[in-house]
Amino acid sequence: MKIAVDAMGGDFAPKAIVDGVKLASKDFPNLEFILFGDEAKIKECLDGENKNISIIHTTQKIEGTDEPVKAIRKKKDSSMVRAAQAVKDGDADALLSAGNTGALLASGLFVIGRIKQVERPALLSTLPTIDGTGFDMLDLGANAENTAKHLLNYGTLGTFYAKNIRGIENPRVGLLNNGTEPGKGTTLTKEAFKLLEADETINFIGNIEARDLLDGVADVVVTDGFTGNAVLKTIEGTASNMMKLLKEAITESGLRGKAGALLLKNGLLGLKDKMDYEKAGGAVLFGVKAPVIKSHGSSKEQAIYSTIKQINRMLESNVVGQLVDYYQKESETQTND
Amino acid sequence: MKIAVDAMGGDFAPKAIVDGVKLASKDFPNLEFILFGDEAKIKECLDGENKNISIIHTTQKIEGTDEPVKAIRKKKDSSMVRAAQAVKDGDADALLSAGNTGALLASGLFVIGRIKQVERPALLSTLPTIDGTGFDMLDLGANAENTAKHLLNYGTLGTFYAKNIRGIENPRVGLLNNGTEPGKGTTLTKEAFKLLEADETINFIGNIEARDLLDGVADVVVTDGFTGNAVLKTIEGTASNMMKLLKEAITESGLRGKAGALLLKNGLLGLKDKMDYEKAGGAVLFGVKAPVIKSHGSSKEQAIYSTIKQINRMLESNVVGQLVDYYQKESETQTND
Repeated sequence: MKIAVDAMGGDFAPKAIVDGVKLASKDFPNLEFILFGDEAKIKECLDGENKNISIIHTTQKIEGTDEPVKAIRKKKDSSMVRAAQAVKDGDADALLSAGNTGALLASGLFVIGRIKQVERPALLSTLPTIDGTGFDMLDLGANAENTAKHLLNYGTLGTFYAKNIRGIENPRVGLLNNGTEPGKGTTLTKEAFKLLEADETINFIGNIEARDLLDGVADVVVTDGFTGNAVLKTIEGTASNMMKLLKEAITESGLRGKAGALLLKNGLLGLKDKMDYEKAGGAVLFGVKAPVIKSHGSSKEQAIYSTIKQINRMLESNVVGQLVDYYQKESETQTND
Repeated sequence: MKIAVDAMGGDFAPKAIVDGVKLASKDFPNLEFILFGDEAKIKECLDGENKNISIIHTTQKIEGTDEPVKAIRKKKDSSMVRAAQAVKDGDADALLSAGNTGALLASGLFVIGRIKQVERPALLSTLPTIDGTGFDMLDLGANAENTAKHLLNYGTLGTFYAKNIRGIENPRVGLLNNGTEPGKGTTLTKEAFKLLEADETINFIGNIEARDLLDGVADVVVTDGFTGNAVLKTIEGTASNMMKLLKEAITESGLRGKAGALLLKNGLLGLKDKMDYEKAGGAVLFGVKAPVIKSHGSSKEQAIYSTIKQINRMLESNVVGQLVDYYQKESETQTND
């Protein structure tokens, strides 16, 4: 199984990317890595021969500030587009990048292509709950607007992901809404509720509220891309500001505070750890024809390693192939009806 | 100036409500309070005569589980509906309740009535920022769906509120969106961006992201009721879960942890204080013909006191009257054009 890696994407590329790949290549000897990017720079980070790692030299790089769709059209020899093209051509099985999110979404959608019946692939991440189990939420912003049919797709996508990647046998799927009672919400959520409820392949538990997300109220949380994006950024902003306030509180308490923090050190590190989104792996563009994973822009060696582990699970379980089969059968049933 | 108080609404009614009113009546001798509810029960909480406090006996109570619109139609002699009716009839100038939020919104909209030009009044709260300044956000869920014209209204409403109640001279108004660049977002946010930008009475600073809310990136944050509700509940859920994790971290660290926490006590209390939504007062149903304020269901004496202080500012500044004038003039200008 081969992973096409955009070695030039992310704040610490190529070093952090190559270091993560080297680390993973020891633990996952079944994987082969094709690094796309500046050959000279990549070689500097690769000490000697690594039999499972090869390099394909590219001359361009998509910047974080580039307009996504324009970038993938104009920068045909960029590390990201060439890596996506390798997946499209069957030379690799999955795509990993820590670069421009919008450009990666565009590469996934327009170069690799979506599964025919999934009209709008979604961005999915596993977010932490306080009990450590986590939940999968989608769409986190691949789309600005969604239809009820898309949200039904997300129920299916999330179910396949939670089952295959997190090993949850019968994942509880919740619809994010402005109240838990059935009949609550917008035209979109009301319609999505009906579709999710009617689908027997989804273990739909009804509406859930944003307040309860971190309590682990559902294994899969379905929402439109605009709301999902706002909720994800709100969790990140609130958590990071509270950590900041906590640090200030310690500093302002002077020596007493510092002594207290020292005694509490393990507990506080545990708190930071539980709210650490990077450990959970990358964000998956789910619903395209191969695993496409975005690692955080600030990813270092360890985050890249975690993302590769996640890709390995996606490849070993063939979750994308399973999805293709599911939708194929579903469309045959509908034609026969 | 008279405040109609629903003495039976909230988890600790009528005692907490009456206690809060008693406390406020000392600091605000300009205010008169009319308490609506079970006279015998209210009298138990009122020790002796209070010249600025009167009681109007009512026989019904709207429960937290009641369906809002049905409840205000059927329970005509409930403390909440009678209090709203008093405002409608000109016997009181503002309405305060800690009861069923949906029923209070319905009382405001259908009994007191909206300002003619404000098609969809919004729920507005002042939320904390880490620097202690706070920001006003609307709509927090009075509506499930909004048009761009509504969001323009919210820019105006928020500006009047921040100016008059929080004393901010030229409030910076931001539009919550999935990116800061102009042109980002949904059909709704793109259209709202244009309307807000074109309105010269609003100090519009453009799109803002949920991640930056607690950093005080804007004084007024405009969003639709579905997103606003999700974001508010996400902040609450994340903050309360982190406090819970922090407590667990302290407990799990055993004696060392407890000693550390003791040394850090003031700092930790400060943190809790900064994230305390109740101190900021109640949520305003803004855009109706009088101040209508929802105090948190779990409000105790102090929270009711804070809410009364907030109502006092709204009455003294005549912010609702100013809004009526503004829209009156605006509609005359449009007719003359």
